[in-house]
Amino acid sequence: VPLPETSLIDRIRRMVGPNSTGIAGIGDDCAILRLPPGSELLVSTDLSLEGVHFRRDWHPPETIARRCFARGFSDIAAMGGAPLAFFLSVALPPELKQSWVDRFMRSLVATAGEYGASLAGGDTAQSPDSVLIDMTVLGSVPAGKAVRRNGARPGDGLFVTGDLGGSAAAIQFLRENRRKRPDPGTFPRHFLASPRLAAGLALRKRGLASAMIDTSDGLSTDLAHICEESKVGAEVWAEAVPRARVGKAMREVSLEVALNGGEDYELLFTSPRRVAGAIAGVRVTQIGRIVRGRVVVLKDAEGKSRKLRPGGWEHFR
Amino acid sequence: VPLPETSLIDRIRRMVGPNSTGIAGIGDDCAILRLPPGSELLVSTDLSLEGVHFRRDWHPPETIARRCFARGFSDIAAMGGAPLAFFLSVALPPELKQSWVDRFMRSLVATAGEYGASLAGGDTAQSPDSVLIDMTVLGSVPAGKAVRRNGARPGDGLFVTGDLGGSAAAIQFLRENRRKRPDPGTFPRHFLASPRLAAGLALRKRGLASAMIDTSDGLSTDLAHICEESKVGAEVWAEAVPRARVGKAMREVSLEVALNGGEDYELLFTSPRRVAGAIAGVRVTQIGRIVRGRVVVLKDAEGKSRKLRPGGWEHFR
Repeated sequence: VPLPETSLIDRIRRMVGPNSTGIAGIGDDCAILRLPPGSELLVSTDLSLEGVHFRRDWHPPETIARRCFARGFSDIAAMGGAPLAFFLSVALPPELKQSWVDRFMRSLVATAGEYGASLAGGDTAQSPDSVLIDMTVLGSVPAGKAVRRNGARPGDGLFVTGDLGGSAAAIQFLRENRRKRPDPGTFPRHFLASPRLAAGLALRKRGLASAMIDTSDGLSTDLAHICEESKVGAEVWAEAVPRARVGKAMREVSLEVALNGGEDYELLFTSPRRVAGAIAGVRVTQIGRIVRGRVVVLKDAEGKSRKLRPGGWEHFR
Repeated sequence: VPLPETSLIDRIRRMVGPNSTGIAGIGDDCAILRLPPGSELLVSTDLSLEGVHFRRDWHPPETIARRCFARGFSDIAAMGGAPLAFFLSVALPPELKQSWVDRFMRSLVATAGEYGASLAGGDTAQSPDSVLIDMTVLGSVPAGKAVRRNGARPGDGLFVTGDLGGSAAAIQFLRENRRKRPDPGTFPRHFLASPRLAAGLALRKRGLASAMIDTSDGLSTDLAHICEESKVGAEVWAEAVPRARVGKAMREVSLEVALNGGEDYELLFTSPRRVAGAIAGVRVTQIGRIVRGRVVVLKDAEGKSRKLRPGGWEHFR
């Protein structure tokens, strides 16, 4: 008995065809990929579950596709890697409309195309009642050159691309306005999420970043990861943290949301050098510096300090 | 708020530690992998869903782990690749016992260790009500040497490792005996599934296989894939098909089950050469030959032929 999802695999295969530079093995048991000579492979895997990472009543399929893509390739960006390919596993409930799947797939393949990443394979199955996506993303980096989390040194500056809190603010808005769907353009980092691949690549090539991570869990948590892996502390200057402006009124998000809101997919990095105001067309802001010890503090304009604890990032249900 | 599954990621990390030869980036955004020089990367992704690919009341966690592992790495075996690493995404329902998760993880890591594959990363999330596993497996193969499905030529012999139908017979048994759980050793290809990695590697190294696939969907379907990709037909000799002997009584499965039962994870391959009776310690049987045209026929002992249609493989619910 042919399974109903066979048709999705066939459609994925057709989509893969024109996009698959450097990838063979379509129609085989495995995809075959060739890496650039002298490079290492970067791999990251992310589950995106309906009700945990997205909601079908809040997020159009195009947004879900962009957010899955950003989530995966933001990890490649954070290592200074170049995108290579991705693999998509999707479990879909039987009642899901074909048009939803088509919109999701079309958007995912188009987004990937913008960044030079190829859909190289995947798997599909039927789920009992919710959409479930697992994306494995592959990138490459010259051997030994990946930017790790463990390279921050006391005296390094602490920098962030773009601005923070925009994605968490969108979720706040969606929670508070149950009937209204905002214009995606008024919360771009949430609804039109994109990974900072060009900036990550430029930072690595120019040797600017001593340690790097993407802001998927929120600044306070992601900075704690860098400090833990690098065995250092940090000082964050509250006034300097770039806060997203969101909604029709372009209101600045609160410091709290900028510090703890997750899923902005910006790059947080440290550098022993003075980093210019923009990298690959993306604004870069110095928000503090790396210090000895293992404590992260937030300093306000008057110079008063308080401990900055990892604020975490609560997914929504 | 720390998510409950954080502890699983931590446990995965601790498990990854000692096993991760050639893998860096644990604790970073991506795993960093180095491929053997001059090699290409093989990648395959498989979803395993509770109720579709396994049942918790039928399959102990150790069996689910072995079957996930076999499912993924059988694809590496079918390309003649060597195992490299795997990535595990799991969504678990909140009521699942910690002991179940521990048994599953311990068995998966142990099985991987037997084959020299490292758990290199993964992701975890909470699912509403069922266990959901996505495994991405990576292997390597010397550049240009992967055994594809498209290399079968008229005149090649058609061969299979081990025997067929044993896994489907286990499901038949489980369906018919709702209260009884069989001794795993009496249905080894189902409960103790393992990929034919050594045989696949040996066939590739010795240049014996012109085309290869693993029998995940059943002989009739998997042979159709080879014929389609190679643009050839085939003749299968009914008498020669090696049928599994299963259960306490070691009863031979029916020809029907051997032809159409899936998930045996044997290797089906074609060769222009006479292949000896065993490869890497696994029995190899010639079950037919590749012919011109695009038709697959089944020939019985009297020389009568009938069309062999892809029988498909119906997952159980």
